[in-house]
Amino acid sequence: MLKPTSSSDALPPLVVGVDVGGSKIASALVDANGHISARVRLPTDVSSPEATLDSIAAAVRQSLSAAGQDDQLVKSIGLGIPGLVDAERGIGLASVNLGWREVAVCAGLQARLGLPCAIENDVRAAALGEARFGAGRGLDSLVFLTIGTGIAAAVILAGKLYPGAHGLAGEIGHAVLDRDGPPCKCGGSGCFEALASGPAIAARHAHKMRQAGQSHLPGNPAQSLESLTARDVFRLAEQGDPLAQDTVCEAAEIIAQAVQLIALAFDPPVIVLGGGVAQAGSQLINPLRSVLDRLAKENWVFASVYSPDLLQLSRLGEDIGILGAAALAIPMP
Amino acid sequence: MLKPTSSSDALPPLVVGVDVGGSKIASALVDANGHISARVRLPTDVSSPEATLDSIAAAVRQSLSAAGQDDQLVKSIGLGIPGLVDAERGIGLASVNLGWREVAVCAGLQARLGLPCAIENDVRAAALGEARFGAGRGLDSLVFLTIGTGIAAAVILAGKLYPGAHGLAGEIGHAVLDRDGPPCKCGGSGCFEALASGPAIAARHAHKMRQAGQSHLPGNPAQSLESLTARDVFRLAEQGDPLAQDTVCEAAEIIAQAVQLIALAFDPPVIVLGGGVAQAGSQLINPLRSVLDRLAKENWVFASVYSPDLLQLSRLGEDIGILGAAALAIPMP
Repeated sequence: MLKPTSSSDALPPLVVGVDVGGSKIASALVDANGHISARVRLPTDVSSPEATLDSIAAAVRQSLSAAGQDDQLVKSIGLGIPGLVDAERGIGLASVNLGWREVAVCAGLQARLGLPCAIENDVRAAALGEARFGAGRGLDSLVFLTIGTGIAAAVILAGKLYPGAHGLAGEIGHAVLDRDGPPCKCGGSGCFEALASGPAIAARHAHKMRQAGQSHLPGNPAQSLESLTARDVFRLAEQGDPLAQDTVCEAAEIIAQAVQLIALAFDPPVIVLGGGVAQAGSQLINPLRSVLDRLAKENWVFASVYSPDLLQLSRLGEDIGILGAAALAIPMP
Repeated sequence: MLKPTSSSDALPPLVVGVDVGGSKIASALVDANGHISARVRLPTDVSSPEATLDSIAAAVRQSLSAAGQDDQLVKSIGLGIPGLVDAERGIGLASVNLGWREVAVCAGLQARLGLPCAIENDVRAAALGEARFGAGRGLDSLVFLTIGTGIAAAVILAGKLYPGAHGLAGEIGHAVLDRDGPPCKCGGSGCFEALASGPAIAARHAHKMRQAGQSHLPGNPAQSLESLTARDVFRLAEQGDPLAQDTVCEAAEIIAQAVQLIALAFDPPVIVLGGGVAQAGSQLINPLRSVLDRLAKENWVFASVYSPDLLQLSRLGEDIGILGAAALAIPMP
């Protein structure tokens, strides 16, 4: 359970970074260089908000006790939470995954642990993590675009999360691209999320396979089309399946439109791609870059904000949740 | 030529605001409350950059001399320019309308007039004018969306223009909405600008009229479809022409998508609509609001950033050029 890391330029731990998910809580100590130690992973108790806070506190305590004498150096806790957050008041406003509505997270953890706590939505925390420790290191602005179950962006300007008037800046996943497109979870139709999120890519490919008379995955009669994932589609494309390559191209066209839009709206120095679909790595970013290159060749205004390295893959890998949460609590250098 | 205005809360003039266009230069004195006096309008001499600077200086001198004794109070000049600007270095980088490339505007005017000078792209200056004196008064953030010959946005955050990494933040007019759409001036296809700028609205309607076998405007056999403008389309729609009402609806759908996108990307407290097409006033904003109301009813994420008064018409009317330019030079209160 514990997997301490060490490095020559590791500093004394400063904060506990906690990545709170609907099924597991990942916690670790993090120093100002982003070095991680004392990793802990516990199941999330979602039976009640108090029980969830208890399991978060248990994970933090385990990380602290794994730190040994260093635990006295830990000054605060950062938490990334799936859902809407009032960061200023330390409140979890709404989380479907945790079953939360208006939960006083920071007060509850301060009472349990005696440490101050900062919370943020997990995508926004991840953006801050990339700015601090990842693909945006050394830059004071970036846009983090996450493509997974949903599509959302978070915006860092002048080293800080840019919230917008309602804390929803960057929610371009629910902008309508194709009014005649498929229905979206938000109630609308043809939003970016309905067209190119992980589930949308899988649904797009399953539809195409059914039209081609296929009822299960090539080489895997046990897997029906109902359980197809975006990961399967990228794997098939990599193996040379032409239908899957076609689906990847379609998804790349749509995600490229989202990237172009972010580039023109915010003109950021870098756009960092994260989330489950981005784990396809070069399988996603190569077709994406070739669409973007084409758009920049056609369109001189886009060419003025675009360069081949504008789009970067997240560099924090599976640690993005912990490092993003930690970035919330580590004071700016 | 001179049309001094006065008001009970007018303050001593502070700056000269200069709206530099390809055919005319409008100049006036402006105080910290946005009161305008000593208006001057001169033709723009575009025979050379030096000649243009001479005609700008002449307009400024006329405004100053019309001010009488107050001219000693004027501390600086603000200029809005059609084209790309390096505001920090006071340079006009490129302007098709003025025939400029890398013109040292501020140095040239300082030499001619002995006053410091601030320059900005005219759309960005207009955004600052709305934030300071218009629909964004009292707010520290807004997005200004101009719909005229082109479509572009300018973003004010924390009371300041947000430039982006290349000074192009807000150029969403060249984001592709419909890959199969008509060609755009930028070289791309199906950009917002190619679908719903003034010329695009006119072309859309002319096409529809030709398909309906009409070769000139109803009631005006002298006007051929080649000279049709967006203004004509809105006027016909107002008069009850069903084909024109149809075109206005189509344009409203597309512009609403741009507004939705801005709302989700920036989550601003207000989006101010300006430019020639926005002069249609309620003829544009009413159908736009009804599309936006529908989108918000369908889509709960958009509903979270939307309210019926999110979208406002520019309040500065024809003075927007002068007041925007002045806002560049007036220190923040």
